[in-house]
Amino acid sequence: MVADVTGNPHGVHSEVGRLRKVLVCSPGLAHERLTPTNSGDLLFDDVMWVEAAQRDHLDFVNKLVNRGVEVVELHDLLAETLAIPEARDWLLDRKLVPNRVGLGLVDGTRAYLDTLTPRELARFLVGGLSTVDLPGEYRTGYLALAREARGQVEYLLPPLPNTLYTRDTTCWVYGGLTLNPLYWPARKDETLLMKAIYGHHPDYAGSTVWWGDPEQEWGQASIEGGDVMPVGRGVVLIGMSERTSRQGITQLARALFDAGAAEHVVVGVMPRLRAAMHLDTVFTFADRDLVTVHPGIVDGMRAVSLRPSDKAPGIEVTDEGDTPFVDVVARAMGLDRLRVVETAGDVYASERQQWDSGNNAVALEPGVVFTYDRNTQTNAALRREGVEVITIVGAELGRGRGGGHCMTCPIARDPLD
Amino acid sequence: MVADVTGNPHGVHSEVGRLRKVLVCSPGLAHERLTPTNSGDLLFDDVMWVEAAQRDHLDFVNKLVNRGVEVVELHDLLAETLAIPEARDWLLDRKLVPNRVGLGLVDGTRAYLDTLTPRELARFLVGGLSTVDLPGEYRTGYLALAREARGQVEYLLPPLPNTLYTRDTTCWVYGGLTLNPLYWPARKDETLLMKAIYGHHPDYAGSTVWWGDPEQEWGQASIEGGDVMPVGRGVVLIGMSERTSRQGITQLARALFDAGAAEHVVVGVMPRLRAAMHLDTVFTFADRDLVTVHPGIVDGMRAVSLRPSDKAPGIEVTDEGDTPFVDVVARAMGLDRLRVVETAGDVYASERQQWDSGNNAVALEPGVVFTYDRNTQTNAALRREGVEVITIVGAELGRGRGGGHCMTCPIARDPLD
Amino acid sequence: MVADVTGNPHGVHSEVGRLRKVLVCSPGLAHERLTPTNSGDLLFDDVMWVEAAQRDHLDFVNKLVNRGVEVVELHDLLAETLAIPEARDWLLDRKLVPNRVGLGLVDGTRAYLDTLTPRELARFLVGGLSTVDLPGEYRTGYLALAREARGQVEYLLPPLPNTLYTRDTTCWVYGGLTLNPLYWPARKDETLLMKAIYGHHPDYAGSTVWWGDPEQEWGQASIEGGDVMPVGRGVVLIGMSERTSRQGITQLARALFDAGAAEHVVVGVMPRLRAAMHLDTVFTFADRDLVTVHPGIVDGMRAVSLRPSDKAPGIEVTDEGDTPFVDVVARAMGLDRLRVVETAGDVYASERQQWDSGNNAVALEPGVVFTYDRNTQTNAALRREGVEVITIVGAELGRGRGGGHCMTCPIARDPLD
Amino acid sequence: MVADVTGNPHGVHSEVGRLRKVLVCSPGLAHERLTPTNSGDLLFDDVMWVEAAQRDHLDFVNKLVNRGVEVVELHDLLAETLAIPEARDWLLDRKLVPNRVGLGLVDGTRAYLDTLTPRELARFLVGGLSTVDLPGEYRTGYLALAREARGQVEYLLPPLPNTLYTRDTTCWVYGGLTLNPLYWPARKDETLLMKAIYGHHPDYAGSTVWWGDPEQEWGQASIEGGDVMPVGRGVVLIGMSERTSRQGITQLARALFDAGAAEHVVVGVMPRLRAAMHLDTVFTFADRDLVTVHPGIVDGMRAVSLRPSDKAPGIEVTDEGDTPFVDVVARAMGLDRLRVVETAGDVYASERQQWDSGNNAVALEPGVVFTYDRNTQTNAALRREGVEVITIVGAELGRGRGGGHCMTCPIARDPLD
Repeated sequence: MVADVTGNPHGVHSEVGRLRKVLVCSPGLAHERLTPTNSGDLLFDDVMWVEAAQRDHLDFVNKLVNRGVEVVELHDLLAETLAIPEARDWLLDRKLVPNRVGLGLVDGTRAYLDTLTPRELARFLVGGLSTVDLPGEYRTGYLALAREARGQVEYLLPPLPNTLYTRDTTCWVYGGLTLNPLYWPARKDETLLMKAIYGHHPDYAGSTVWWGDPEQEWGQASIEGGDVMPVGRGVVLIGMSERTSRQGITQLARALFDAGAAEHVVVGVMPRLRAAMHLDTVFTFADRDLVTVHPGIVDGMRAVSLRPSDKAPGIEVTDEGDTPFVDVVARAMGLDRLRVVETAGDVYASERQQWDSGNNAVALEPGVVFTYDRNTQTNAALRREGVEVITIVGAELGRGRGGGHCMTCPIARDPLD
Repeated sequence: MVADVTGNPHGVHSEVGRLRKVLVCSPGLAHERLTPTNSGDLLFDDVMWVEAAQRDHLDFVNKLVNRGVEVVELHDLLAETLAIPEARDWLLDRKLVPNRVGLGLVDGTRAYLDTLTPRELARFLVGGLSTVDLPGEYRTGYLALAREARGQVEYLLPPLPNTLYTRDTTCWVYGGLTLNPLYWPARKDETLLMKAIYGHHPDYAGSTVWWGDPEQEWGQASIEGGDVMPVGRGVVLIGMSERTSRQGITQLARALFDAGAAEHVVVGVMPRLRAAMHLDTVFTFADRDLVTVHPGIVDGMRAVSLRPSDKAPGIEVTDEGDTPFVDVVARAMGLDRLRVVETAGDVYASERQQWDSGNNAVALEPGVVFTYDRNTQTNAALRREGVEVITIVGAELGRGRGGGHCMTCPIARDPLD
Repeated sequence: MVADVTGNPHGVHSEVGRLRKVLVCSPGLAHERLTPTNSGDLLFDDVMWVEAAQRDHLDFVNKLVNRGVEVVELHDLLAETLAIPEARDWLLDRKLVPNRVGLGLVDGTRAYLDTLTPRELARFLVGGLSTVDLPGEYRTGYLALAREARGQVEYLLPPLPNTLYTRDTTCWVYGGLTLNPLYWPARKDETLLMKAIYGHHPDYAGSTVWWGDPEQEWGQASIEGGDVMPVGRGVVLIGMSERTSRQGITQLARALFDAGAAEHVVVGVMPRLRAAMHLDTVFTFADRDLVTVHPGIVDGMRAVSLRPSDKAPGIEVTDEGDTPFVDVVARAMGLDRLRVVETAGDVYASERQQWDSGNNAVALEPGVVFTYDRNTQTNAALRREGVEVITIVGAELGRGRGGGHCMTCPIARDPLD
Repeated sequence: MVADVTGNPHGVHSEVGRLRKVLVCSPGLAHERLTPTNSGDLLFDDVMWVEAAQRDHLDFVNKLVNRGVEVVELHDLLAETLAIPEARDWLLDRKLVPNRVGLGLVDGTRAYLDTLTPRELARFLVGGLSTVDLPGEYRTGYLALAREARGQVEYLLPPLPNTLYTRDTTCWVYGGLTLNPLYWPARKDETLLMKAIYGHHPDYAGSTVWWGDPEQEWGQASIEGGDVMPVGRGVVLIGMSERTSRQGITQLARALFDAGAAEHVVVGVMPRLRAAMHLDTVFTFADRDLVTVHPGIVDGMRAVSLRPSDKAPGIEVTDEGDTPFVDVVARAMGLDRLRVVETAGDVYASERQQWDSGNNAVALEPGVVFTYDRNTQTNAALRREGVEVITIVGAELGRGRGGGHCMTCPIARDPLD
């Protein structure tokens, strides 16, 4: 394994270098909570057949493992973390408070959770604990205040179905990571779970955190990992999207510059659209100099460059004017140009495939990517460019509008040469 | 084959008697038109991977054929019909008019369609013909008025993706059929295609039509076949739903009574909800005396009985008061009671499975039904009641909110004994 | 009064020539039916305080009368029409049919309506007749099928609150009129009322109808009067909008050309937006050569010219390419240019005022217009151009998104010199 | 003036005792920011004619003053507070931080604000400061990251149009007040302004704060003053609504019990509906024993009583079972029963009037209330019960769905007897 200069086994040094280690999260209890009534609030477009999603996810993991990638799974990491008494206390002290669980329900809920194994507890921390899950002996009169209607129950711990998309919650940027303040309230609790892991799990404790802390309040500053791409040579691409704000980007850029972790952040200014919620829904790398893009969005994106500056607050801002985002990226990476594979097909197919995560490829190594099976035309176009395309079944996994790139959080990836 | 007394090979004499012949419609061009932008208008919740939907649909058809059912397909019937010159003229004379195609585009479009084989023409009649499909030599200056934006094109013939759900457009009720006025404008044109078939195709011309004519204007009167169930003994169940109105039901009832085709119509009064758009989304038969129901809706349904009357306008109306719909049905069918399999699982699973067409079973014969694979809990509950459950892959086919019952229009089904 | 060459006292020969006679419709019962639950279906954005709306409407009418305009009111015309037995029968024969009222309710409803005076009947024909309005002695068992939930009742005659906007239903174009097929189902019944009036009322019977008939089915062909402006010199502007289709425009243009009633139709191609539902929501005339426009929409509009042609189907189509709509209009009217008053104010105020019908002026004569009081900045801009602006109170009347232009259907207006 | 036992001139000791002093907030810049595009995000149903709203609000204030109430206005209080240098620093130090304004824009924005008078600054703190408001000399390159589209600009300080409804942000409960954590992100900043006032303004500094602090993070705990009613005798009614959560209610109840400020909290469990967002939208007092209620909601409300307890966490919870909320309230207040005036009129009028704040009365003294003019039927019903009803013009003020009760935050109100 290529390690960085500090001997750190973890670190992500490119978008397409050899993938060594990756974090994923299996579908589970949280997705069994999704109904037509609540799925919108939980950011899913439709309910999911969880067993089939689990099967398809296992197949994806298996293909990663067979190609030599070390895959770690969120429930596993969380259970291993919760087996450490201080870690368990640290996390439950923060989750089981009157502001979340409600006064009069903290002690009973904590007492019930104390009876659970680390694995059972991890399942509820990701999948949510509803008032009806609480056994009789832990229930109190305060439950009279729970307001439960058909198809809606109250939660003592909220379900976190978007953990499926591990890409967003944390991101490794070269030798360190970020603990991201996520945009939607429905996802904010994900980052606390990751802080527990990175703070206590023996394999991860001591990792360098560039920026972010779920115990702070971040106001309008938000970052989601689907918008962040460390492409090598000290360059980081960041999409300014529905979910990643300028307040977040500038703070992250300064933190990276201050630590000497990056020298150039290229901001891609995107419209605020659900269909294009992150940069990686319209632009991902498939090879050293090859990207797949959705022209309907990317053609209209402005680019702004951020570089270190001696002048407070530490950033030099350059509006790249009319230069297309793709060209600004190529230049920043030291390339003459990027080859581009557009979402393929006619006007219908192109819109359909972008929606179905057709541009959301994740690279195993240069020229080898995973994508969903359903985007046959874009997959064919990638293959015509010499890319090896390994497919994942997307019928269920894609219903939260995320593909292979979204479902993987690289923990170790080689630089390009 | 059991034929009715008149020697008519067609006719549907029950909901669970031996299924002899059925009409289905394969996914195709119309579904390739679906995009995130237009799918709502076309009544689909999400875009569909058409090749996978086609594969799953073929598998369904194959299973029907292997069990001895004669399956006819809409594109096939339409192509066979269009091979008859008068039928082709009859249909194109009605589709290619200034009110639909636009003045100045009728002749060019007709000239182009005249170059097509019956099969190619059938494909466009179901799948839609957009202005960009029209070859250059047939285009006129009038196309300057077509308003085309990203992801939206105008149609000269509208796409009809809901033909997938053949159940709704026509229904055989005992020895005759209805040509239904459908509720949503996006579906109205389906019935004209069926009139062409029933009016000209040699296997179907001469069928008795109880009621309905797509060339008339029906105002608030609408009927969709998913709400109509001829259960035998002269009884017909009709759901009064979002899509089937009292104006339609009373006219259909009177037509059936006048023809002596039925003696008792049991109306189930449903709420107007997309989740419960037809009776067959919450209530279907799995055996002679066994129904699968979604209690969230069915428990609250009122029943009203319609019977023939000598007094104009020919119907005796009886409000069944507090008697549950299921009990009114049982009594009408001469049963002591109906056995009931509810959508299974906890509050989440039940809502999810109803949404995923868990109650939308179609019977091959008493005690043998087809359902989607994804509703594992309801399927298990049916099996515990002794039902043979044959599963269909629903990942793609279900995205328009219809299951096996919706996708089949029985043309010949035996009575129960 | 200036009459046209045929001696016809009615006719609209310009957009800003002296207004002689106009049709309006007072707020009333139909608006008392509006609730937060149903207002969206009835195309209103909010509920209305009907008494205040009536007061503000009376004030508008009074100002018109004081300036010498003859104002006729829809309920009055309808009541006068219904006093003629054949007219009453003609209309009730078409409204009280099983497709609308429901089988078994036709006779009882008709019997009840037969007890009403013409004025009372007119009130229900515009305001709707709900099942709960039907007195006990006229009720039948068929009402068991009426599905009534909190805040929702069923209608035997539908409420028509958009009659307030008389501009849309019919339009006088020079010496004749059109009976428009309206776009939304909620409005379609308005045109039948107008046909009753123009077919039977002694002041209007015998009027020339260029095009349109509410007893025919029009498919995709729709026209709403807010999109139609006869600006003089044989020129007619027509907005192709959310509600006026190319299928409608081309048929209307050909009818006008065939009758020699117009020589040039300028089509303004608009986006499909609720905020810009008709041409007159973004573009109206305030003087011979002065228009008020909302640049956010009008700047992006393409123009297409239609002129008579000897070649079937009778129209010559010219795409005006990059020439701005405003310039195409000026040239068609024989002017060097049009003076333009844009919706005034900053980015907020401009969007607010367009929404509040700021560009929806109706002219009394050249340089004298009525507008809503609330668009103070656009009104001031018009005054700076020398226009006399008379204001109407818009707090309630504007809640269906229509202003003075929408609320008036000119029946007689002079040409410009 | 009646002062409480501690000599504190402020305190609210009932819902209908003599109103002595009240906080309101005039419409202004924040409402000029409302457009059809952004009004939903800012919780308004429609745009507002600001000048007319200001006139109607001034008239309301004038009527209060004429009846002897001391009225203080939020912009005034804020300007007086900002005139104190430490207060100005305290507030700007909290508002002008990278998480809100964005890195690289803090210093320029602060420098610009430093040039403003306290009144000008107060105007922007309530009305919002957009990037386009920042004069050229204070602008930096970081503005290249601001994403501005038609009708949408970015804010350096957010507009707070819901300050109009002063009732919600803070509430006086007997001798002290609460600084409420509000439910919607769009409103959260309101409470910080109030903390600046209550922390620094000479008339208010030193007030007792029972609970709440806008500088803390409250998770799922939210309280809005429209749900809180100190009715006297140590009783407080709290609606558990869309916007007031059980996590908030239990904490507030314990704080009141711990301080001896209340002895009984009656929780009314409401459905989560925008139409019934607060208790005071469906239930307010008009006299000692008279309430106006919307039966559609109130009839279905469960009641739960909270009382002090020695057992941790300090609350005794009693589910009131089937006893109607109105009866639980009467008993808690020591009354035999409450007289009830329901939202008047037929099914339409009742729903319309509730929507138009028909039940949102605010009392001047027992039997004297302010309501909107438009709810004529409910106002008449109140008058028939002997109540003096003083009307406010609601055409513009009501567009954010709030009436007289919502627009007033009592600071001093006498107990009953």
